[in-house]
Amino acid sequence: MRRFLADSQPATHGLPLDFKDRDFLDITDFSRDELEHLFLVSDHMTRYLHNSIETLHGKLMASLFFEPSTRTRLSFEAAMKRLGGDAIGFADPAGSSYSKGETLVDTIHMVENYVDVIVLRHPAEGSAKIAAQITDLPVINAGSGALSHPSQALLDMYTIRREHGSIDGLKVAMVGDLKYGRTVHSLAYGLSLYKVKLMLVSPETLRMRPEILEDLDQRNLPVEQFSRIEEVLSEADVLYMTRIQKERFPDPLEFEQVRSVYKLTPELLESAKKDMIVLHPLPRIDEIDPRVDEDPHSRYFKQAQYGIITRMALLSLIFGVEEKV
Amino acid sequence: MRRFLADSQPATHGLPLDFKDRDFLDITDFSRDELEHLFLVSDHMTRYLHNSIETLHGKLMASLFFEPSTRTRLSFEAAMKRLGGDAIGFADPAGSSYSKGETLVDTIHMVENYVDVIVLRHPAEGSAKIAAQITDLPVINAGSGALSHPSQALLDMYTIRREHGSIDGLKVAMVGDLKYGRTVHSLAYGLSLYKVKLMLVSPETLRMRPEILEDLDQRNLPVEQFSRIEEVLSEADVLYMTRIQKERFPDPLEFEQVRSVYKLTPELLESAKKDMIVLHPLPRIDEIDPRVDEDPHSRYFKQAQYGIITRMALLSLIFGVEEKV
Amino acid sequence: MRRFLADSQPATHGLPLDFKDRDFLDITDFSRDELEHLFLVSDHMTRYLHNSIETLHGKLMASLFFEPSTRTRLSFEAAMKRLGGDAIGFADPAGSSYSKGETLVDTIHMVENYVDVIVLRHPAEGSAKIAAQITDLPVINAGSGALSHPSQALLDMYTIRREHGSIDGLKVAMVGDLKYGRTVHSLAYGLSLYKVKLMLVSPETLRMRPEILEDLDQRNLPVEQFSRIEEVLSEADVLYMTRIQKERFPDPLEFEQVRSVYKLTPELLESAKKDMIVLHPLPRIDEIDPRVDEDPHSRYFKQAQYGIITRMALLSLIFGVEEKV
Repeated sequence: MRRFLADSQPATHGLPLDFKDRDFLDITDFSRDELEHLFLVSDHMTRYLHNSIETLHGKLMASLFFEPSTRTRLSFEAAMKRLGGDAIGFADPAGSSYSKGETLVDTIHMVENYVDVIVLRHPAEGSAKIAAQITDLPVINAGSGALSHPSQALLDMYTIRREHGSIDGLKVAMVGDLKYGRTVHSLAYGLSLYKVKLMLVSPETLRMRPEILEDLDQRNLPVEQFSRIEEVLSEADVLYMTRIQKERFPDPLEFEQVRSVYKLTPELLESAKKDMIVLHPLPRIDEIDPRVDEDPHSRYFKQAQYGIITRMALLSLIFGVEEKV
Repeated sequence: MRRFLADSQPATHGLPLDFKDRDFLDITDFSRDELEHLFLVSDHMTRYLHNSIETLHGKLMASLFFEPSTRTRLSFEAAMKRLGGDAIGFADPAGSSYSKGETLVDTIHMVENYVDVIVLRHPAEGSAKIAAQITDLPVINAGSGALSHPSQALLDMYTIRREHGSIDGLKVAMVGDLKYGRTVHSLAYGLSLYKVKLMLVSPETLRMRPEILEDLDQRNLPVEQFSRIEEVLSEADVLYMTRIQKERFPDPLEFEQVRSVYKLTPELLESAKKDMIVLHPLPRIDEIDPRVDEDPHSRYFKQAQYGIITRMALLSLIFGVEEKV
Repeated sequence: MRRFLADSQPATHGLPLDFKDRDFLDITDFSRDELEHLFLVSDHMTRYLHNSIETLHGKLMASLFFEPSTRTRLSFEAAMKRLGGDAIGFADPAGSSYSKGETLVDTIHMVENYVDVIVLRHPAEGSAKIAAQITDLPVINAGSGALSHPSQALLDMYTIRREHGSIDGLKVAMVGDLKYGRTVHSLAYGLSLYKVKLMLVSPETLRMRPEILEDLDQRNLPVEQFSRIEEVLSEADVLYMTRIQKERFPDPLEFEQVRSVYKLTPELLESAKKDMIVLHPLPRIDEIDPRVDEDPHSRYFKQAQYGIITRMALLSLIFGVEEKV
């Protein structure tokens, strides 16, 4: 890996980057330089997308999903296997000792004996951090509570960088549930390392949390808030859609109203910039009209592809095997 | 593989067979020549039944089971792993994004980025075909709706061929639920490529669907219908039993009656031909008396063995690696 | 393996040990010599704890869990993968044909065609034995009914041996549910091969079963019964804690009372011998105060580590690959 960096701009500004054995709990665990390096490694991983390598041969990943998640789980497991490693774990808490009342702490104490890296999805805020404090193994946060989903932010940022050439200078609009959606929270923090403008579009009840807005302000990320997609469409370079969940609304009528307003259609997209890209962490329900799938703005299925290569890059770096690539 | 074909009769009649990257959605996707070739490859795979090879090393299969199925799922996963490959996936929809309302279309768009072949079990009619239209990856139908279960038909036909020496000239009786059982539907179409006589034995309410009977007629497959096992026992070369499910009957009394009539016992088998074989796609509940397991006619446990070798053959052919065997 | 034995005391007393293709259904299936050999192989496996080997390359294990169990399942799967093998299976019966009414017998008849070894967890007493009678493949009992969990006994005994240097001469106290807990039953039989004294501490309603006490007596294992942890604490070399389940008590008040009496705290441990070790098969609920985790007596998290190496040893021996180690 270090070899192929010679052909690129030096991302380290002279400082050696060291990812080996590190946890990845929050997107802010990585500096901008480190993110850029990870993106370069991801570029490189593209060639192994359907063509496995053996750099993690003999290594085992624990895939502990205390909440169901096909996409993130399969993406991490595929990444590990494409690199020659393997995985054990569970896909939902019902099949685990957790259902017998075991604490997360005890689960980590057990599983650290079986594997070399732990990938954890858990509904509790701060769960990944707790896991990382217990074990010496590297812990990767695959989604914890409502605030953090850093590997999703990685792939979102990589998608933006790869589709637009760079992240700096872009206007990124986030649409939908900005209060409970952990992907938008991690992405906002990640983008704060770049020179972007954030446009937040949500119903009143699902606004971005004030404490996050304050953080973003301190990190000098310009943020504007809106109520309708139409208000940002002609300006945005990235339109990041999210799922609005019925259970967030006490009143079903209010939900129906919001749903129709926050639905992206090909007609709406007519006023978008030519190179604007539409992203979505998926799964989507009906916040994006299926006709948009064929629209040249759509990139949300490509995100899944970038998801596996960024996770291959992340795992390679944490295992310290990039030089063998 | 092509080498060992030199020792066998040419199956291609001079035409090159090409399975590479093809979907396998229906048993009729394969010609008789192609089936025969696949059966020869299956013969060859027998030697790797407990002795893995490396022809699919580095390849990943998605095993997407939207309906639970131990047998078919484990058989495909074991086949892939015996060939040196690996698998990711889910065993039931509860652990998938499907439970969040994601469509099959979006699931396929996601998973095609992670793997090299997709094996799909789904309750909706035509689901495998939809998946195949979306992705460039080969799709294998592991059971869709009530009509199609082509890999089961493969192993059923292979069992008949291997246990009887050939399929042509045989009388095949199918017993039980011929209306909802997808295995009998696929098998009937598969057998229509051979010179067999079909004897259908079922209660009035579970008769083979008229549109299938019409298809079979157009394919020149002679079909006769019966109501009792006794009517076909002395003539049949193959007795293909199926499970009759309680939920198909509005009246529990009717179900009890049917159940006792469609139950195979050693006593019944006394009037069978000496080399008649009893098959069942399994799982069975009580439509075959456990005492039949030891009967020389029984072959339904051997079917499972043939299931893995036909699936190894299928995967090898689709990946185009038969020459490396 | 045989080579490294040359450096150790001969475990065989001149008799060749042969584990190849054997079932492991009960802890009493192994003689004391065989256990000692397995423990030596386990010592050796320590070096592969985070560093896989290839001795079981190409071999497949069926991991059939008809009851959920994260710990045992992940431990066996990790052991198999660390040895270069792979696994297929299911983590709970809902995802299996069992939920369609299939018998264990039929499941074994199916799966024996797919794999090289079967690891079975099943709620029915004697289930592993039934499985072993059906198939020629080696069957490993990963917990059956309330009486047998031999691989847990292996790791428990290995933990005692490794932490104390030897098992002979120790006083082992078992605390909690001695009636329904299968781990204490298997462990008691295992310890009867050694010169130990057993101290049983349980509420009246959860006493060790009379038929087991009789067996232990015939095996010349001295046993004493107690009602409070305090009565054994100053004497015990091993304190084996177990979970007391609410559902065992018709009266919730009685459960609350028992729970508070059978809870281990750092204060209680002050009267323990200096080198006494606390074990627990885990998961625990609240029968061990989390403050005990940091106590020098605690070894229950280390048990998990010993769990994977004893299972690696067991699998290696059953596959007959110890000489390749």
